[in-house]
Amino acid sequence: MTSVPQTPTLPLTFLGPEGTFTESALLQVPNARNMPRIPATNTAAALHMVRSGEAAAAMLPIENSIEGGVPATLDAISNGIELRILHEVVVPVSFVLLAPAGTSLADVTAVGTHPHAWAQTRDWFGSRLPHATHVPAHSTAAAAHQLLEGTDAFQAAVCAPLVAEQTGLNILAAGIEDNIGAVTRFVLVGLPGTLPEPTGADKTTLAIPLPEDHPGALMAILEQFASRGVNLSRIESRPTGQFLGHYIFNVDVDGHVRDARVADALRGLHRVSPGMKFLGSYPRADGQPPLIQPYNSDAAFGAAAAWVDSLN
Amino acid sequence: MTSVPQTPTLPLTFLGPEGTFTESALLQVPNARNMPRIPATNTAAALHMVRSGEAAAAMLPIENSIEGGVPATLDAISNGIELRILHEVVVPVSFVLLAPAGTSLADVTAVGTHPHAWAQTRDWFGSRLPHATHVPAHSTAAAAHQLLEGTDAFQAAVCAPLVAEQTGLNILAAGIEDNIGAVTRFVLVGLPGTLPEPTGADKTTLAIPLPEDHPGALMAILEQFASRGVNLSRIESRPTGQFLGHYIFNVDVDGHVRDARVADALRGLHRVSPGMKFLGSYPRADGQPPLIQPYNSDAAFGAAAAWVDSLN
Amino acid sequence: MTSVPQTPTLPLTFLGPEGTFTESALLQVPNARNMPRIPATNTAAALHMVRSGEAAAAMLPIENSIEGGVPATLDAISNGIELRILHEVVVPVSFVLLAPAGTSLADVTAVGTHPHAWAQTRDWFGSRLPHATHVPAHSTAAAAHQLLEGTDAFQAAVCAPLVAEQTGLNILAAGIEDNIGAVTRFVLVGLPGTLPEPTGADKTTLAIPLPEDHPGALMAILEQFASRGVNLSRIESRPTGQFLGHYIFNVDVDGHVRDARVADALRGLHRVSPGMKFLGSYPRADGQPPLIQPYNSDAAFGAAAAWVDSLN
Amino acid sequence: MTSVPQTPTLPLTFLGPEGTFTESALLQVPNARNMPRIPATNTAAALHMVRSGEAAAAMLPIENSIEGGVPATLDAISNGIELRILHEVVVPVSFVLLAPAGTSLADVTAVGTHPHAWAQTRDWFGSRLPHATHVPAHSTAAAAHQLLEGTDAFQAAVCAPLVAEQTGLNILAAGIEDNIGAVTRFVLVGLPGTLPEPTGADKTTLAIPLPEDHPGALMAILEQFASRGVNLSRIESRPTGQFLGHYIFNVDVDGHVRDARVADALRGLHRVSPGMKFLGSYPRADGQPPLIQPYNSDAAFGAAAAWVDSLN
Repeated sequence: MTSVPQTPTLPLTFLGPEGTFTESALLQVPNARNMPRIPATNTAAALHMVRSGEAAAAMLPIENSIEGGVPATLDAISNGIELRILHEVVVPVSFVLLAPAGTSLADVTAVGTHPHAWAQTRDWFGSRLPHATHVPAHSTAAAAHQLLEGTDAFQAAVCAPLVAEQTGLNILAAGIEDNIGAVTRFVLVGLPGTLPEPTGADKTTLAIPLPEDHPGALMAILEQFASRGVNLSRIESRPTGQFLGHYIFNVDVDGHVRDARVADALRGLHRVSPGMKFLGSYPRADGQPPLIQPYNSDAAFGAAAAWVDSLN
Repeated sequence: MTSVPQTPTLPLTFLGPEGTFTESALLQVPNARNMPRIPATNTAAALHMVRSGEAAAAMLPIENSIEGGVPATLDAISNGIELRILHEVVVPVSFVLLAPAGTSLADVTAVGTHPHAWAQTRDWFGSRLPHATHVPAHSTAAAAHQLLEGTDAFQAAVCAPLVAEQTGLNILAAGIEDNIGAVTRFVLVGLPGTLPEPTGADKTTLAIPLPEDHPGALMAILEQFASRGVNLSRIESRPTGQFLGHYIFNVDVDGHVRDARVADALRGLHRVSPGMKFLGSYPRADGQPPLIQPYNSDAAFGAAAAWVDSLN
Repeated sequence: MTSVPQTPTLPLTFLGPEGTFTESALLQVPNARNMPRIPATNTAAALHMVRSGEAAAAMLPIENSIEGGVPATLDAISNGIELRILHEVVVPVSFVLLAPAGTSLADVTAVGTHPHAWAQTRDWFGSRLPHATHVPAHSTAAAAHQLLEGTDAFQAAVCAPLVAEQTGLNILAAGIEDNIGAVTRFVLVGLPGTLPEPTGADKTTLAIPLPEDHPGALMAILEQFASRGVNLSRIESRPTGQFLGHYIFNVDVDGHVRDARVADALRGLHRVSPGMKFLGSYPRADGQPPLIQPYNSDAAFGAAAAWVDSLN
Repeated sequence: MTSVPQTPTLPLTFLGPEGTFTESALLQVPNARNMPRIPATNTAAALHMVRSGEAAAAMLPIENSIEGGVPATLDAISNGIELRILHEVVVPVSFVLLAPAGTSLADVTAVGTHPHAWAQTRDWFGSRLPHATHVPAHSTAAAAHQLLEGTDAFQAAVCAPLVAEQTGLNILAAGIEDNIGAVTRFVLVGLPGTLPEPTGADKTTLAIPLPEDHPGALMAILEQFASRGVNLSRIESRPTGQFLGHYIFNVDVDGHVRDARVADALRGLHRVSPGMKFLGSYPRADGQPPLIQPYNSDAAFGAAAAWVDSLN
């Protein structure tokens, strides 16, 4: 995995507050631990910092997030000054129950946390601490800090595992989330510049306005991928808000823009939908290489180009 | 719009807490105001009430919601005992600032609300009440109720407009959301039973497992729609979690299963992807009828069937 | 193979003259040997006899024929009073050299035959009888009859093997065609009536006007086949002559109109191209059954229809 | 129209005999009248002369010919040493009745001609000279030459109009063909060398082996054209004879291999079907330019390539 852009004077930003899964995601990026990090209050603020040159890059939840990652995030990345996705990180959605040294589970009658974290651990509390009440906090990390500051409103806090590391509070229980196995997908976003090198297991993200609203328009777009053997790993339609039935398709495809089949599909798409946005080619979080048919390999594209040249 | 299923002894449920946009959405359904309503703590709980017969139907956010509606909602509807979408409601995401009689804007130094509502009104407070602090609450409605109970932790609450109506608190300011024009889409979900009648402006929702992971598999599915002139108004790929590269496509198509072109497409899809789930045919919230080519009309399907019959 | 329509007073016709491969093809149809046969001077005359009720059916060359079978034959079948293909017969294009008893190969200095048969045996004569000259005849059979009548213009005739059987002339040499292995495909054409029963190895022939001339129009037609798993075994574009770029596609598909997948594809095509002509479902000459995916079987179509019915 | 390849010592050849529509077609090619012409006895012989360097080019009937042009002609061009189509010529299929000076229509009791020409003028003779008998000849021109040599077997000959010009015989009647308006399409075939320049109204001919026999294989090929907006003006499936269900598609597409959209489609096809043969890019006989959407223009292809380059 290529490392984060390191501009000496520029910090990284992430969707705050501190101690969230988003910050965990950011810390998985090489070198990020050694750089200053600034939490942003919302997605727009984080992207503004990047676009205005105040931050080197922003980590944002993009899919299926307990922390409010919404489909609108990709819209925000697509619109305005051009940005590029540089990394993808997948983080398990897991919660711990933290308390100061000396507090045991039996002592807990009130629990501080963000309402969403509380909603995601109701079953665990229902069976283990059925009489515990909830005290809402700005964030999971804010609840932990209130414990450090000696609050008497609650005895324990529900947080992401990162907060245990950051605060030194004791872990009374781990893996207390009701929905075992859930993950959130995050992306690191920066200004266009050096494209991450192809690794053989890459992803390319595009925002493709649908040329017209008729039953075949989406197929006309997919045909550009299919005719080059480019597989879609994600597709989401997004209303543009401009007029009824006008959509943008956000897609992830297997491969890097430096793979011949992806480059060729992008050339085709640019003709059909000239407003298409390239949002980046970057390593897949799962490191899984795609299965490429021999006739869609770089060699096959090279041979085909040479053959057509030979006809002249 | 057909009305809600009315089983004398059964209440309606919705993703709580009270006073949210979800409850506003529920109240737009004919007859819903006259029926008992029970807030559910999460989507799974709401759906469980419907599946177990404790509630007649559940209203849930489905798209782009400020309140945490996540793509996973459709997954939860698709998996388990069969359910059907009965209605679609679209609600503007708009906030009001509420306070007890006698409190003016100048008196407000602290504001109670759910952290997400606070995040969505930061710009407004930044320019109008830059020194106001945030006191987190379980929900926007919970903050309003704390005001009614005489809290001195804050002087005003950020809520959905419905809460003003429900509590009688004064509206100090309306339309204070930073993101003007945002809407959330909700669906009312019940057990299969009477299918809503076609209105001429309907939507059908399907969950279609992708038969295999190869570049043409999605096209093979879309071909079933395109060959009958059925337009997709939404498509989202969802990982099934079973194995890598295994997807389910959640789609909304224009039309009702009683429209010949939709029924014919469903027959084709059932063959190609027998695990497909039918999640309902119901009136579109926007009432916009689709444009149907003459050769995709019920009459054209009828004529074609008669012609083939005549060949025997 | 079902037998020929037997109307007591009606003969069969075929593209003459007598003794051609077309007559050989006709004699392969069950019962045809017991019915009167009338050679027709051209395709139009043969089809006129059928359309006017003077003949029960007509055998015509349809593909790759040495005897002048041209793509226009299917045009002639498609246009005018509706006709149906009832049988398909494939005949090897093989020639014999015939002479009266007492004539040996060494006696042959001149050869009578149709100029086309002469053109197709030039290599054989070049190596075996390099000094033999050609005397043109109306037909290969006419040359044989001239021998029977005692002509002295030539000593032998090049004919189809059938002529040996019909005239009793001796076979001086067989298999003298230059192009070994060539075959001609013939069809038996009659008025619509009883459809040949499905045999499990059938063919359906269609004439499909292209709705519009744009790059995707042909794909829109093929999509109707592909979406039901119907394989094309032949496709030919034919100009309609009405205006530039206006085409009809003549196609053969695997299967019988009583196969669910074929019937469903025909319903789709009739909507997209209402001028489509059904030219018949009939047993394949090669008896080769198609490979049908389970999801395109009659059972799968039945299950899909039942499933959609169950949604109402 | 570019002129014929002129190698000082090399003649042109054509499917003989002399005086046919094929020779008429050859004479329409610029400069052809000034070059020696050799009739070939069949298609294989004509192509052999070109491949072996004995002839500069060969004119052959390719579609719908009264003279025996069969679909197999393109097969013969495709197989063996590579050849290229250089020109396309369309000739009306029209016949004249020729006789020596002094002979009037009333004098004609027997008519010499090739059996096919006789078959194509039966209606005219039926109404104008119902008692005339047919004397078969090797070719239409051979019949005319017999008249010049003073035969008494017949008084007139049915020929192509070119024979009147070549022999000086009188035209007793013109336009005597039964099927008014029929045309035959011919192609001039040579060795690869200088590609004809694009004219803006060109055609490209390809022979494309179908990769596999499954319902979607043909669509996979057509997708390569459709995704670049390349229109097919002719498509014919041809069995390869290698094994059942193995086809080659002979197609004509609008445009020249130097048009960006055609070159790009060929690159795609070469990957999918590496055995594809390029049979030439040459001016259309009808001079009709295709309608090209702006997004399929050379400019659009150039802009797309530049855009993808800019991403690196």
